[in-house]
Amino acid sequence: MVDLLIARCDVLRRDKAGAYRVERNCDIAIEGNRIAAILPAGQIDVQQSRELLNASNMLAIPGLINTHTHAAMVLFRGLAEDVSIESWFNDYIWPLESNEEPEDIYWGTLLAIAEMIQSGVTTFADHYFFADQIAQAVADSGVRAHLGWAVFGHEGIAKLDETVAFAQRWQGGAGGRINTWLAPHSPYLCDPAFLKATAQRAQAHSIGIHIHCSETPEQVQLSLQRYGVTPPAMLHQAGVLSVPVLLAHGIAVTDDDIAILKDHDVAVAQCPKTYMKLAMGTAPVRAFREAGIPVSIGTDGAVSSNTLDVLEQMRLLALDQKQAAKLSTILTVQEVLEIAFDGGARALRAPELGILEVGKLADVVLLRQDGAHVFPPYDSLAHLVYAFRSGDVDTVICDGRLLMRNRCLLTVDLERVKAEITSRLQRLSQRVVERRIASYPTG
Amino acid sequence: MVDLLIARCDVLRRDKAGAYRVERNCDIAIEGNRIAAILPAGQIDVQQSRELLNASNMLAIPGLINTHTHAAMVLFRGLAEDVSIESWFNDYIWPLESNEEPEDIYWGTLLAIAEMIQSGVTTFADHYFFADQIAQAVADSGVRAHLGWAVFGHEGIAKLDETVAFAQRWQGGAGGRINTWLAPHSPYLCDPAFLKATAQRAQAHSIGIHIHCSETPEQVQLSLQRYGVTPPAMLHQAGVLSVPVLLAHGIAVTDDDIAILKDHDVAVAQCPKTYMKLAMGTAPVRAFREAGIPVSIGTDGAVSSNTLDVLEQMRLLALDQKQAAKLSTILTVQEVLEIAFDGGARALRAPELGILEVGKLADVVLLRQDGAHVFPPYDSLAHLVYAFRSGDVDTVICDGRLLMRNRCLLTVDLERVKAEITSRLQRLSQRVVERRIASYPTG
Repeated sequence: MVDLLIARCDVLRRDKAGAYRVERNCDIAIEGNRIAAILPAGQIDVQQSRELLNASNMLAIPGLINTHTHAAMVLFRGLAEDVSIESWFNDYIWPLESNEEPEDIYWGTLLAIAEMIQSGVTTFADHYFFADQIAQAVADSGVRAHLGWAVFGHEGIAKLDETVAFAQRWQGGAGGRINTWLAPHSPYLCDPAFLKATAQRAQAHSIGIHIHCSETPEQVQLSLQRYGVTPPAMLHQAGVLSVPVLLAHGIAVTDDDIAILKDHDVAVAQCPKTYMKLAMGTAPVRAFREAGIPVSIGTDGAVSSNTLDVLEQMRLLALDQKQAAKLSTILTVQEVLEIAFDGGARALRAPELGILEVGKLADVVLLRQDGAHVFPPYDSLAHLVYAFRSGDVDTVICDGRLLMRNRCLLTVDLERVKAEITSRLQRLSQRVVERRIASYPTG
Repeated sequence: MVDLLIARCDVLRRDKAGAYRVERNCDIAIEGNRIAAILPAGQIDVQQSRELLNASNMLAIPGLINTHTHAAMVLFRGLAEDVSIESWFNDYIWPLESNEEPEDIYWGTLLAIAEMIQSGVTTFADHYFFADQIAQAVADSGVRAHLGWAVFGHEGIAKLDETVAFAQRWQGGAGGRINTWLAPHSPYLCDPAFLKATAQRAQAHSIGIHIHCSETPEQVQLSLQRYGVTPPAMLHQAGVLSVPVLLAHGIAVTDDDIAILKDHDVAVAQCPKTYMKLAMGTAPVRAFREAGIPVSIGTDGAVSSNTLDVLEQMRLLALDQKQAAKLSTILTVQEVLEIAFDGGARALRAPELGILEVGKLADVVLLRQDGAHVFPPYDSLAHLVYAFRSGDVDTVICDGRLLMRNRCLLTVDLERVKAEITSRLQRLSQRVVERRIASYPTG
């Protein structure tokens, strides 16, 4: 018995050679939380389907994967514009974050999840505080998430152990939709001893590590001054790379760093809107890929990137890479799709995601193809990278369950979420620079 | 008597010092094709209004201005991906354009206009072929346009004179919604004699000139080799700068060029998505602005930029400029808004556009503010540049007339347009490289 039949849609598939292509006019059958069949329209018996979803003129794609964000930072969206990265941290973000209380994070994360569902994102990797609240928001809303409780070195080992306890508590939670990581902030805010302690715990409990690294040339200089090695080398020395690592950014890595990351099967998340907005430079994405390092797409938090829009970040990755390399033939449409879908799955070590194929998890997004901006339909793949926008997302299914239909959210009460956040805004938006939770080191 | 009362919207205004700000909960009264009043909600008598438009929780902005495009190129959207600029011209665009027949341009332009209306664009400056068909599409759809019939030097003076005749025929057409320009292609495809002839005609008939210039460093080198001067200097020598000039791109200009452009009140249109996608480099927008040269936003054609989305181009302008300058504090939110709205009006020499103010033309766009991605509403200006997307456009008014309401197009039958284009696609998409309308010179 088919639980959900998605009828008469075009489907983004991947062929045996790894090339993406669109199969026109197919039916997708979902049983439980998995894809049971993808066949030419009409071959699946409607009578044998509990629920029928007419998807004519829709394009079905795998649920988008946001491999690096700080979801609840939507609470501060728009509060730190046109500033330097140092000021962004020290004068805005870290003072603002000192205002956060656990329940704020629940509502902030739900707002972020609502935005992500509206943008076709079904899985996100979060790196933030009060992670039990985040996990609860994920459980309540039906999305999939890889969660790490962010921790700074100065918070000490007892706090680190709390984040380990969180990871154990929620591993496999929400019916298997939650995976957990450890989330030390970065080599510039966690010293080698703290990172070593983190790595030991990650190894002991078989947990991966999600961490920021080498975001700017200045950070690399600081690491060389302090420790005599680059940030990736320091992570290696501390044992961090002995577990699965999801490394955010890696903009200012060296050739030697790339070799280290490759040797340890590290995956790298790219959030180009943040890099451009904060003028951080452009990561060597081609070199990562030539080395075989999985590259994936993240949105970062909404105070730097303003949106949690993976489609937008896919487009920006290609545009920024082409412009920086002065070469318009790189980061092709096929490569961007591979980064977004296959790269996302590889970054999260979740091979059941990022592809529409029988037996894989049923995370499916339907895009409306009726807008003037995606006509003529010569090349739906090019449209996916350069023309579709999040406003085209019509329907979102995660783990076999409908989360949005006809642009209506089915699992998040957005008006309630907005009301809860509105009642907290005055307290949350206070900015006392001295009352910050960390300080960005400037050498 | 008020013809249209837009009730209870937030309004993007500009204060006396030139700063953009949002006035909450206002009514906008439109009489004929002009704004008659903008007042706090409730002060305009609903009984005295012919039509009432409830705009609660909408943000009213001036109709967006697309100051450089080739609208009908949507006919080829997606056909030239991941190629070099030389190949883009010689192997794709100019062979494809050899397939065009006049009526194709009518339908292609209508598709582009549908996309622009759906994206909040009410005015566009077009630079394309068969401009009578373009003008007819503008007349039929209700938008505003500044039209120039694109011409290459090799087409000769007789063809140039046809484009002059078009400009005279349609100047002030469609009830004043059409303005016309002359549109020689570029200094690299129009020789000095041809440009001189163009300038003479423009002066004689008081018509402005819309032209491409200095798109890449290679074009500048070629100009120096051929003529001993840069492209802007060559335009100056040919007399082109003696009339109002809208110059597209200007990426590879020198300091001397900037002085020439400033001295002749030239305006510069920026289309950053094309520049990034074709890896053309980044224009000196800060230097233009420091010199007092009006900078505006264009989308270019959809074969390079894939969309005709001015909101997206505004965002990309800021992101590309910050990244290229390695300075996140430049091109602030206020500056981007000034470029988009005030710059758009100045580029088109149309001071009645780009601002919501009593007495100005009634081109108004309403954006939905209910999406999760524009909450909380701390800073609607930052949201406008970095978070709103074209999918948020709900209602579009041009010249006092509703062109879209509740996302439904009112003046373009999009299904009819698509059907007409579909019947032409096979012929239009043939690509015979030898049968091209021009050749991109490579020195």
